[in-house]
Amino acid sequence: MDLKAYLGERRDLVNRALESYLPKGRGPAVRVTEAMRYSLFAGGKRLRPILCLAGAEAVGGDPGEALPVAGALEMIHTYSLIHDDLPAMDDDDLRRGKPTCHKQFDEATAILAGDGLLTAAFHTLAVAAPRYEGRENGLLEVIQVLGAAAGYQGMVGGQMLDLLAEGRKITFQELETIHRLKTGALLTAAVRTGALMGGGSREEVTRLTGYGEKFGLAFQITDDLLDVEGSAAEMGKATGMDEKRHKATYPALLGLEKAREWARSLVEEAVASLEPFGSGAEPLREIARYLLVRRA
Amino acid sequence: MDLKAYLGERRDLVNRALESYLPKGRGPAVRVTEAMRYSLFAGGKRLRPILCLAGAEAVGGDPGEALPVAGALEMIHTYSLIHDDLPAMDDDDLRRGKPTCHKQFDEATAILAGDGLLTAAFHTLAVAAPRYEGRENGLLEVIQVLGAAAGYQGMVGGQMLDLLAEGRKITFQELETIHRLKTGALLTAAVRTGALMGGGSREEVTRLTGYGEKFGLAFQITDDLLDVEGSAAEMGKATGMDEKRHKATYPALLGLEKAREWARSLVEEAVASLEPFGSGAEPLREIARYLLVRRA
Repeated sequence: MDLKAYLGERRDLVNRALESYLPKGRGPAVRVTEAMRYSLFAGGKRLRPILCLAGAEAVGGDPGEALPVAGALEMIHTYSLIHDDLPAMDDDDLRRGKPTCHKQFDEATAILAGDGLLTAAFHTLAVAAPRYEGRENGLLEVIQVLGAAAGYQGMVGGQMLDLLAEGRKITFQELETIHRLKTGALLTAAVRTGALMGGGSREEVTRLTGYGEKFGLAFQITDDLLDVEGSAAEMGKATGMDEKRHKATYPALLGLEKAREWARSLVEEAVASLEPFGSGAEPLREIARYLLVRRA
Repeated sequence: MDLKAYLGERRDLVNRALESYLPKGRGPAVRVTEAMRYSLFAGGKRLRPILCLAGAEAVGGDPGEALPVAGALEMIHTYSLIHDDLPAMDDDDLRRGKPTCHKQFDEATAILAGDGLLTAAFHTLAVAAPRYEGRENGLLEVIQVLGAAAGYQGMVGGQMLDLLAEGRKITFQELETIHRLKTGALLTAAVRTGALMGGGSREEVTRLTGYGEKFGLAFQITDDLLDVEGSAAEMGKATGMDEKRHKATYPALLGLEKAREWARSLVEEAVASLEPFGSGAEPLREIARYLLVRRA
């Protein structure tokens, strides 16, 4: 398959859906929806939505059916970036080559834009309910999975642990926990909710969740590697930042070569977990392999 | 009826439910759940949850059935207080007589605690789904109502407008819009979702929504009056702050006497809208009248 064409086509599909969920000029306070849209349409790769659609496809479902969930995932992801970039958190000025939300607007607006996106994610799902007549239970399960992945049990907890780890030596296990929560949880939820919306069996959902967990960890390792090896122009943000901040990373803890090797074996495991699935899972296989060659 | 006893009993019911939704030591990062609990159990009056339970009661439903929604309302309310108190927003040090979340913990923790509570609200509702077998549609409608009341269409939009209004003269209509969104939307949603969970007819839900709108506005006016007339000890926060901040208020725009009169007539209208309801709506009537005599 032509992965590049596939990703481009899916990205367009997701962007059109997001555009319909959060159109220009919406709401009584245009400044906050502008800030929400500024970050939501800042050129994200739409990895989580695409994983979600591919999860639906893998179980033989219609990826279009999962679009509201895909949109909610991207809203949650974007909110987390806006809040993580705040001065009180990671204090980042640049994101995807553009000023971060609080730099482009101001801190208060950025806090509210994040709050607005997080709320819009759940609202978008509830608004879509009429599409899922007779499958309301599945939609509520999706909301539960997203809530756990995004909340104190997942991303919020991971960001807290990450902040607490700053400036002190942490163990390998602590690093794994942080990443499992901070990035892994939502990536895993993306594939899982896709499988749920696609009508996958319990066994299929469990298998795809396993794929998501391996994928999430491999994603983080390759992300760390890119911070060491990538160029700022390709990444759209400053590189070498982890070292500058004395942040624990896999390359720092394991060495470059071992980190690369581990990412490779995780991708192999992720692909292996897709064995019972037919050609519908080809996108998930290709996306996993792509992690090892990505440049941004 | 004995309103004081009623409020106390309902507050206990809500507190027990909240305790079960967010128990001590929950999650991988105890610091953030501690901060969430710190603000959630800081002695709030539980007005929104109580309105929700009373809304269910008014349509002849079992208030206990609405408890997860009541809990979600209080989580959303608490998250909004935490974020509104942040230095980048209203920069408040004191809330309900105690240090605000970012003073007690730190800014990053407070941002995350707010994010965690907002997420937990929706998660709590989705987790409760098995209780509502056959009524999943109603639960999804509740999520939609809460999402709209909390999001850019409601509270988030209102807080944005409030910040934009700071330091400049605003019209009476602007002030009304800000309050309708910032406080009114969630108070109205509380009664409305209660009526929905209690199994109210469309007409009943519409009537109770009307009650909520009048109540919300009357609440804001009496809140402004308390800031002028109340004592810091009774309010648990500094009073006279609105004037110090040159914030537009109803007493400032209308004068004390006219503001008081208007609150009175709104309460009358709210009570009048309950006319078709029987004794089940007595708590809603009493709570509305209480606005005119409250001291905190």
